[in-house]
Amino acid sequence: GPPRHEFRRMITYQTPVLAEWVDYNGHLRDAFYLLIFSYATDAFMARIGVDPQRDQHSLFTLECHLNYLHEVKLGTEVQVRTRVLAHDRKRVQVYHTLHLQGADEVLAASEQMLLHVDLKGPKSAVFGEASLAVLDEAFEAQRHEPAAEYAGRRLDEQCQGQQESRGLSR
Amino acid sequence: GPPRHEFRRMITYQTPVLAEWVDYNGHLRDAFYLLIFSYATDAFMARIGVDPQRDQHSLFTLECHLNYLHEVKLGTEVQVRTRVLAHDRKRVQVYHTLHLQGADEVLAASEQMLLHVDLKGPKSAVFGEASLAVLDEAFEAQRHEPAAEYAGRRLDEQCQGQQESRGLSR
Repeated sequence: GPPRHEFRRMITYQTPVLAEWVDYNGHLRDAFYLLIFSYATDAFMARIGVDPQRDQHSLFTLECHLNYLHEVKLGTEVQVRTRVLAHDRKRVQVYHTLHLQGADEVLAASEQMLLHVDLKGPKSAVFGEASLAVLDEAFEAQRHEPAAEYAGRRLDEQCQGQQESRGLSR
Repeated sequence: GPPRHEFRRMITYQTPVLAEWVDYNGHLRDAFYLLIFSYATDAFMARIGVDPQRDQHSLFTLECHLNYLHEVKLGTEVQVRTRVLAHDRKRVQVYHTLHLQGADEVLAASEQMLLHVDLKGPKSAVFGEASLAVLDEAFEAQRHEPAAEYAGRRLDEQCQGQQESRGLSR
């Protein structure tokens, strides 16, 4: 059948910004944006049927890129939406965006490359057929959505051609 | 005079891996690698003379890239070394690497673009002359070190040309 609607806007995590995540100014610290995305990855992993405690497989983060677009204050209710940008038989490239609940503005974005791992090695492992089917379904449901604006970036792209720089204009 | 030796291998943070940073397998969770790098950024900020509480200026992370190379277990003593890859009058591009204490092997690497901000706006602000002098000194001391291996990457570079992929081979 057609891709299920739930994958077009896949909400993987919702939380208020907790007191232990903010700096002395009451703003979410950079690392805790990633913690929120990390909990979203846990939920995504469950959604594709990978369960470390049941079957000794997990997703390891190989690499991740974050863009911080807006400050987020203590107590704010936020949610993470997740897209499958790509996958092969062992890896999945996801794109998480952070939002105020129900709002489209992107507060932060994170592109991540995740590797399916057999914890008994640990060694990389091919996804099970059920997981591959869910990954395909999510990919198909989302591929006609607007481009993932902060994916595929090099960190220093914004710096090219700046004046008065030391080493920034390579 | 010549660049000070302390900048050639600038150790910005040391810590054991704490219990609240590990998953149920006793391994450091992805977000807490970034928390360790975030504390290293705080120390780096102090080293260049930017003090949020004294003079209402700070460094905001605009963007960051992380590469996870090795698992790190509960209780392991780790240290962060920091390089100034580039800077201009408002921004500095740093490169943090995580190591076992005194060891050269890289456990994880993070390239970050930091913006100097006047918290009274908040708005971007030119670094003070003293901060610029330290940034120049660090940049000069480190520019002939071996290349920062995980800097300048796009997240999906490793995926090009893979077989059996959905969307990975652009």
